[in-house]
This record gives sequence, structure tokens and C-alpha cells, in this order.
Amino acid sequence: MTAALFQNRLSVINVGVSSFAHAIESHSTPVVDVDWSPPASGDAALGRSLALMINHPAIEAANKTAFERYLSAEPRVIDVLATRDAIADIGERTILHAGPPISWKDMCGPVKGAIVGAILYEGWASDAATAEALAASGDINFAPCHHYQAVGPMAGILSPSMPVWVVENADRGNRAYCSLNEGLGKVLRFGANSPDVLERLRWMKTVLAPILRKAVAALGGIDVKPLMAQALHMGDEVHNRNVASSGLLLKRLVPAMVESGLPSRDIADAARFIAGNDHFFLNVSMASCKAMMDAAHGVSGSSMVTAMSRNGVRFGIRLSGCGDQWFTADSPVIDGLYFPGYSMEDANPDLGDSTITETAGLGGFAMAAAPAIVQFVGGSPADAIANTQRMGNITLGQNNGLTLPTLNFQGTPAGIDARKVVDSGICPAINTGIAHREPGIGQIGAGITEAPLACFAAAVSALAESLDLHQSSPPAENS
Amino acid sequence: MTAALFQNRLSVINVGVSSFAHAIESHSTPVVDVDWSPPASGDAALGRSLALMINHPAIEAANKTAFERYLSAEPRVIDVLATRDAIADIGERTILHAGPPISWKDMCGPVKGAIVGAILYEGWASDAATAEALAASGDINFAPCHHYQAVGPMAGILSPSMPVWVVENADRGNRAYCSLNEGLGKVLRFGANSPDVLERLRWMKTVLAPILRKAVAALGGIDVKPLMAQALHMGDEVHNRNVASSGLLLKRLVPAMVESGLPSRDIADAARFIAGNDHFFLNVSMASCKAMMDAAHGVSGSSMVTAMSRNGVRFGIRLSGCGDQWFTADSPVIDGLYFPGYSMEDANPDLGDSTITETAGLGGFAMAAAPAIVQFVGGSPADAIANTQRMGNITLGQNNGLTLPTLNFQGTPAGIDARKVVDSGICPAINTGIAHREPGIGQIGAGITEAPLACFAAAVSALAESLDLHQSSPPAENS
Repeated sequence: MTAALFQNRLSVINVGVSSFAHAIESHSTPVVDVDWSPPASGDAALGRSLALMINHPAIEAANKTAFERYLSAEPRVIDVLATRDAIADIGERTILHAGPPISWKDMCGPVKGAIVGAILYEGWASDAATAEALAASGDINFAPCHHYQAVGPMAGILSPSMPVWVVENADRGNRAYCSLNEGLGKVLRFGANSPDVLERLRWMKTVLAPILRKAVAALGGIDVKPLMAQALHMGDEVHNRNVASSGLLLKRLVPAMVESGLPSRDIADAARFIAGNDHFFLNVSMASCKAMMDAAHGVSGSSMVTAMSRNGVRFGIRLSGCGDQWFTADSPVIDGLYFPGYSMEDANPDLGDSTITETAGLGGFAMAAAPAIVQFVGGSPADAIANTQRMGNITLGQNNGLTLPTLNFQGTPAGIDARKVVDSGICPAINTGIAHREPGIGQIGAGITEAPLACFAAAVSALAESLDLHQSSPPAENS
Repeated sequence: MTAALFQNRLSVINVGVSSFAHAIESHSTPVVDVDWSPPASGDAALGRSLALMINHPAIEAANKTAFERYLSAEPRVIDVLATRDAIADIGERTILHAGPPISWKDMCGPVKGAIVGAILYEGWASDAATAEALAASGDINFAPCHHYQAVGPMAGILSPSMPVWVVENADRGNRAYCSLNEGLGKVLRFGANSPDVLERLRWMKTVLAPILRKAVAALGGIDVKPLMAQALHMGDEVHNRNVASSGLLLKRLVPAMVESGLPSRDIADAARFIAGNDHFFLNVSMASCKAMMDAAHGVSGSSMVTAMSRNGVRFGIRLSGCGDQWFTADSPVIDGLYFPGYSMEDANPDLGDSTITETAGLGGFAMAAAPAIVQFVGGSPADAIANTQRMGNITLGQNNGLTLPTLNFQGTPAGIDARKVVDSGICPAINTGIAHREPGIGQIGAGITEAPLACFAAAVSALAESLDLHQSSPPAENS
């Protein structure tokens, strides 16, 4: 039998460990190599839970509800307010940060640097050393942005007087918030806190925010999803490429800015600031994605991921059906494209709430829309398309309001199903900027990374437990 | 022999007439069908000339010079002026039009309608009937825009007081001109001449142009090629898709507009007009392409195409090595995507100078950059890429200053070689808007068409004659 087998020309399909395929290929035999790993990474208990959860009617129904709420969300910029005015229940001595909860002593360099900057900006201390002592004293309340329906890129710092975009989901009325984008270089979100950084923040509060506020009011608000949809047809994925969307936003704002009655010089400065910052839309995108994902959150039994977020130490996710719980793992360091003079050695682990865009089917999930982004994050345009297609394996569906031209106008894959991640071992692709691990140096690169599988495994376990799958239908031990 | 042939399994390559391939395919035999037609469409005399011209050292050297002048052109918006101030040698009673020369009686509906509009706008007549009589009287001098280093979309009408973009090629100092874009709908360039159309033109002259002029001056000019390059990475091909480039241009202009000291209300109106017109950049693109192609014009012996242009009746081209000569053929009617209620029956034959963009390697040649344009001109994103790749067969090289992300950042194919067109039978692909054949109705669709082969055959014949190829090396009659 064996002899007969090897006398014939072989056609081989290799499943799993690809080194077997290489061995066969080296003997000039064609091999189709199937990229496969055991469900739940071979964790037997989790695998059993997963088997019960796949196609489970209650989870399917919950996911349908959650996904539809996401799809029908209509995020709309309705105002620009100080954080304390936007978020009524935030205390006067609260500073919000990116990612899951973390205490001062455990925070990474850029987050600590940005917090020192925020304390100086608020006037709670007059020098960095005093600010740092105050931060360590316990007199400041630190909390994740996500706990207040907010998100922030990189360090993600929000203090009471900082202005935020106020986005409302017209479909369900929930609101979300995000800071205004400061531009690149030395900026607070990368941990910089020098006088020029604080000066820019003060200008944003006293000049830029009032102009934006008046313009948004004059326009009666700005629908964000049509802007995102158009930007996807213009090479943005609205996470790390926002050049089209920032331009589209400026086009909407400018006539109203000019007619605001505010000083021409300030309006020119504001227009120049926005025009000179190709990431200006990022924070609008993030607040809008947060509003879309919060709409899908809190559906009992749903395995849909409603937040992915990093504090620079831990990567955390939330599931729609798991309430306020965070499921965390160590934040990865990114093997990306580094600016000259920097390498992975200098990099802070993955940081920021901006992965809310991937959670909403944008960013890494919509890379097929943005072939030019590979010049920034690495890879080829074909890789960008492959990333989007791979995400189709772990999502609940497509968002046909956000279509991708290079994939024949297919909707972007959206609604990450934690079950599918654990079952396939395919992790969400994330386009991200890379911060230096020391505060104040800023961005040192960008790249493509993945959400850690362990977050999804923990989340699926917790959801399984909450659903009491084992009690209702105990699996036979030897099945 | 024949019997033996048909006893074996056949592998067939079919060259040329593809119906032979279909016949073989219908018998379940695999066929590779090679799309081929005889050089010079089988015209023996032209074919002989062509054989002498392919790889001819003098032509190769001339094309190298012409192509390098095109590549190193640096178009820059330096001013916005009235046509009479920009083009000193234009007479007071001259009206410029798109395409090759044509007399009033032979003009198509949209061009006649636009000329009547221009006469009313200039105040040379007070009603349409009188204007039409004046146009027919011979008292107005009609000339192609191209004869005055100008270009105009669709009807392409320029009268003395209309404002034009002034673009200078910083590399060689040559200038080019194009009107300001009026937007879509009822506009002069589609032959509309009603009071609202003329009112808009007057506002553009008295309000918009002075604001643009001041802004351009304050900016010290605007380099256009970087804007085009960036727009190609944002889904534009800067002929029929200009949404990114128009936004990029507005971003440059706005701060200077606001600081111009002109009335805020006018600035807001101007910003709103530009922001509301996704084709605003088209006319800047056209003037810039004209400046680039004029740089390459006039190189003795060059077979590089330096203009493709249509007057709505005839399609004309010029070669770098053939001076002021036009080589014309009937303008095609476009089998494109028509707006609801319209069909090819309603369409004017292909019209306008905007094919200067294709001549410069943009538009249909750069379609791979603009997958979303297929929603406007038809076909699939794969067709768009295939169009760009096909143009690689008839061009002198690639413009590495204008790269295409979906083709791994390859430069756009540019520098149409008339020899290659005639040799391969592959005609330049053109993305174009479609005008109604009656004046004043406006755009009724858009589509992809081709420049007529006959223009290129005539041009190659003329170039051959000017080079006296037959005298210097007469071909043997029976070779």
C-alpha cells in the first residue's frame, strides 16, 4: 500500500505545522499548505466550551441584536465641550487614560509623561516634580476613558478642562467623547509635556475649540458615517490614515468657521492647524466608533467584541455580553516600520484607545481601502487586502455602509466574534502608531500588530460561565 | 500528418480574430486567445513606414528628449487672471473653444450654446438670437484654446473677461491656462447659457477670482505635481475624479483666503463653492497637464503625443515632432453610464480639452489609482487596473513622480508614442463626461472611451514624411 502510494505522483494537502509542507516541497512535490491551528490553542476545557458556544441559539440571537445595533448606529458630531461639561459625573480631580484600568505605579512612560502634562495644564502643580508627586499621592483619581464613554489615542489623557468632540448616536441616543488631535511630533498623547506642548493645548482650548463649537452648531451637527464611507473610497482606513477624512471634515467646517464672527486671524490659524494635520479626523473617527460600539454593548449572551484598548502595559477587550469586565493580556511590542534611529528596543508596548476603530471594522480591518498606508505601516498593497480578507473569518458580517473599492465595494468586515477568534486562532489586525517608551520623545514608528489571543480566550471562558452552558447541556467526557 | 494532429489532445494559441478561438473552445479544447491585429490596421504603406520608424535612432533620441522634458516639468499655479490679461495676443473679439479648429456652422450644440453664453456674458449682445447672429456673422474670431497655450473642459469656452488659472512650468518657464470650474448641473461648459449660469460666471469673475488671486499670491504660488501625486494615493485620477485633489487644493488655499482681508461673507461663499464642487481641481489639473505637455512639444522627429482634444465633432491630436499640425478623426459617441432618462441617442460625440490629462499619463491612464471611479464611468476595479496596464504598451515610460498604490507604487504610464498606438492597435483610454447634444441640458453621463486610431495613423504618416524615411533608406518592394 505504502509502496503503491509513493510510486504515484503525490498531491499533498498539509494542515497545520507548515514545516511538514516545506519538507515535501523540497522534494518537488506540490503541496497546498493550510494555515490551521487547533481551536482554543489546544486548551481542552476552553475547546469544549467553544464547541457548545458555536452556533448556540442564544449567542447567535444576541450577536444578531448587537451587530444590528452597531450597523444602524448614526454617529454625529453635535458639540465641542470641555471634558467636565461633556461628562457630568467626572470628578474635578479625575484624569482619564487609555486602555483598561491601571494604577499610577504600573503605568508606562508615555502615559506618566502625559499625566504630568495634564496636571501642569490644569494648574494643579507648577513643575513636573510636584506634578509627579501629586500623581503618586493618590489625590488624583485615574480611570479608563472607556469607563466614561470616552476614548483617547495613545496615552489617551483627558483632564477636566480639555475640549472633547461630543458624538451622539442618532439611532439610540448614546454619546461618546474624544479629545481633539494635537498633530504629530512632540504632543501630549505621546507623553510630551514641555511648555510648547502645553501652550498648544491651551490654544486648542481657548481658540480652536470655540471656533469648532460655533461651526458645529451652525452646521446643525455633522454626520460622521458618510464622511468615513467617502474617506474609505479615498484611501483612508480612518485609523492611521486620515488624510482624506481630515480634508472632508475641514471642507464641511470651513464656511461655518469663516462665518462664525470670530477673529479672522484665529480662524486662519485654526484652518491652518487643521489643514496641516492629516490625523485631525482620527479623534472624530474614534469617538464615532466608540458611539457605534457602545450601541452594541450590553446585549446579554453576545460574544461580539465592543472594545479593544491598550494602556501601554496591558491590552484589554470587552464583550457585549460581559458587561464592564475587561479581559487583558500583555500589550505586544510592534515589529513595524521605525523612523530612522529607532528600533523595537525603544518602543513602548502597544498603547491607546484607537483600536476602537478596528473594533468597528475600520483601521486594520479596512486596510484594503488604503493601499498607500503600507508606506507607513509596512507590507505591500496585496498584504493590505489580505489583512481585510482574513478579518472576514472572525467577524459577524460586513458593514455595507462602509465599502471597500478594491474588494469590489464589499462592506468592511465588522463585529469581531470572540468565539471565531478563539476557534480559528486568527487575531484582530491592528494598524498602529508606535510611541517611544520614554515620555516626551513621541512617535518613533508605525506598524501592523495583532490583539493578543489570550484576551479572547479569557472573554470566551467568562461568557461560557455566565451562560452556564455546562449545566444546561453537559458534554459527554469521551465524545 | 493532419490526421495525427487531430488524434492528439490539442493546445491551441489563437492570434487575432477571436471568433476562431470561440469555435475551438466550443469543442472543449483549451485556447489561449491573443488579442492581436496587424500593425497599421493592415495599411501596407503605413506599415512600411512604421517598420522604418520603430527603433529609428533619430526618433528614439527625439522621444527621449521630449519625454524627459515632460518628466521634469514642474507645473505651478502662479496667478488667476482675466483671459485677456493672461493671453496678451488674444484679440478683444476672440472666443476660444475646445478641440481642433472648427467653424461656427460645423460646431456641435453644446459648443454653440456656450458661445452664445459667452457673448451674452461679455455684453456683446443682449439676447440669445442676436448673440447667435453675431457668432454666425464672422465678426467673432474662433480659435482652439490649444492655439493659445490654453485648455478648457467640455465646450472649453474662454472669452476675454473670463478668469483663468495661470500655471507656469518652473522647469522651462512655459505657461498654460484654464478656466475656473463652475461645478456640475447647468453650466456653460455643457452649453447652458441661462441667466443663472451667467450670474454664476459673473460671481466667479468678480468675487471668486480676486479671492483666489490674493490667496495664490500670499502662498507664493502652489506646486501642482505634489498635489496630483498625493491625490493619486487618495483615489483620484485627476480627470473625472478630483474629490481628493479639490480638497487638498482647498486646504492650501483656505488660510490665505481667510487672511486676504476681503469680506468674510465672500470668503465663506467662495469656500462653500469650492467645498461643494468635487471637480474644482480638474481645471488646475488640465492647465498643469497642458504646461507639462507643451514642455515636451516641438522636438523635431518625436512621435510623442502632446495633445489629444475634441471639439464635439472631430477628435484631434498633435505630435511633438509635427509642430502645429492637427491629425483628426470623427469624435466617438460614448457607450458609458448614462444618468436616468438618457441614452447614447442623446449624447454629443466626445468633447473637450480634458484629454490633456490622459496625454499626461493621468485620467484613463491612471485609473488603477481610482478604483471608486468605476461607479461613475462603469466597469470594475479590476478593469480600471487593466486599463492602466494596457496603456503601458503604448507609452514611452512611467512617471515615477506620479505613482499608483494598487500597482505597487509603479509610476503611471505616460508619454503616448503614436508609433506604438499604430503598431499595436491599442488606443489611448479616456475617462470622460458625456454632454447632451442639445445645448444647455448639461452632463447626461460618463464613461470610458478611446482615442480614434485614425488620428495616430495620420500623425505617424506625417511624421514619416517629414523625416523622409523612404528617401534615405528605400524599402525593397518585395521584402
